[in-house]
Amino acid sequence: MVDKATQLLDDYGIADLTMRRLARELNVTPGALYWHFADKQELLGAVADRILTPALAEVVADWQGRITAICGQLRDALLSHTDGAELVSASFAAGRSTAATELLARLTDAAASAGVAPAHAGLAARTVVYYVLGFTADEQSRLQWDAAGAALSDGQSVLGDDDPGVRFAFGVRLLIDGIAARQPQRL
Amino acid sequence: MVDKATQLLDDYGIADLTMRRLARELNVTPGALYWHFADKQELLGAVADRILTPALAEVVADWQGRITAICGQLRDALLSHTDGAELVSASFAAGRSTAATELLARLTDAAASAGVAPAHAGLAARTVVYYVLGFTADEQSRLQWDAAGAALSDGQSVLGDDDPGVRFAFGVRLLIDGIAARQPQRL
Repeated sequence: MVDKATQLLDDYGIADLTMRRLARELNVTPGALYWHFADKQELLGAVADRILTPALAEVVADWQGRITAICGQLRDALLSHTDGAELVSASFAAGRSTAATELLARLTDAAASAGVAPAHAGLAARTVVYYVLGFTADEQSRLQWDAAGAALSDGQSVLGDDDPGVRFAFGVRLLIDGIAARQPQRL
Repeated sequence: MVDKATQLLDDYGIADLTMRRLARELNVTPGALYWHFADKQELLGAVADRILTPALAEVVADWQGRITAICGQLRDALLSHTDGAELVSASFAAGRSTAATELLARLTDAAASAGVAPAHAGLAARTVVYYVLGFTADEQSRLQWDAAGAALSDGQSVLGDDDPGVRFAFGVRLLIDGIAARQPQRL
């Protein structure tokens, strides 16, 4: 079921990923589907977990290296599926993705390793996640519009002349510097 | 027309803000509407500019104060309209909001004042904007689901026990520290 839901997402986008549509694709009644997923949020959470699985590859590195690697893996995972950033953002807000919770825990560990006070390490991790989600949602919107042949001005988006990967890495380094600066006595 | 479009957004959300629906509300033909807005992206950009107008209040302060104030004003503006964060994110990606361009320019100025190299000040500004958009999209999804009576787990979202304004400010300070650390010789 999650395979088929992910396929629907990739083929038609998040707007067409509905319980009704999925039931039709699976040749089951909507009622049968609700037996597996209590509501649409639970379905989206399961698809978010599927999307995020490649981002859960273990990283052995210092805290800076772990944050850099997790951010890169998260971006790659989101860009690998149509509307991936939007779907994972929604599931993150709803607290319905186990994989997103795990990524947040790993970033929290890394922030704690950097010396951020325990009470603030989770906030630092969220700051990183919001940046990655915001950046990637912008990048993905742009890529999908370009693929659809939309004519857009070039001034404002993340996809300018530079490699978006380079732009993305700049923000990650800025966040790492901010985390490094948050010694306990400063909080 | 932008008044009515903003009203539609507030009453029904971004999914119901379509050219067809707006034409019906205005008692004009869809063709007449396309005479004013070349496409839906242009309509969304005009609504984004309307939403962001309060965030353009001038701020006189040092660069840290300007970034803090702009972020706070941007968050307040996004939260003041249904799906405000999602709509402005989409317009930002499409490069269709004049007000978003102006906010980005002001943040770029602030980053340059902090000593970030000219080639990187715009990237630092975008990092801040992506954080604000990511944080506020999460906060707003949660607020709207709560208003709709959805039962969500509390673990993962931005609206935990703490004041979301305090959590938001933590990330802004982290970004400011990261910008302060980006002296030209480090880039």
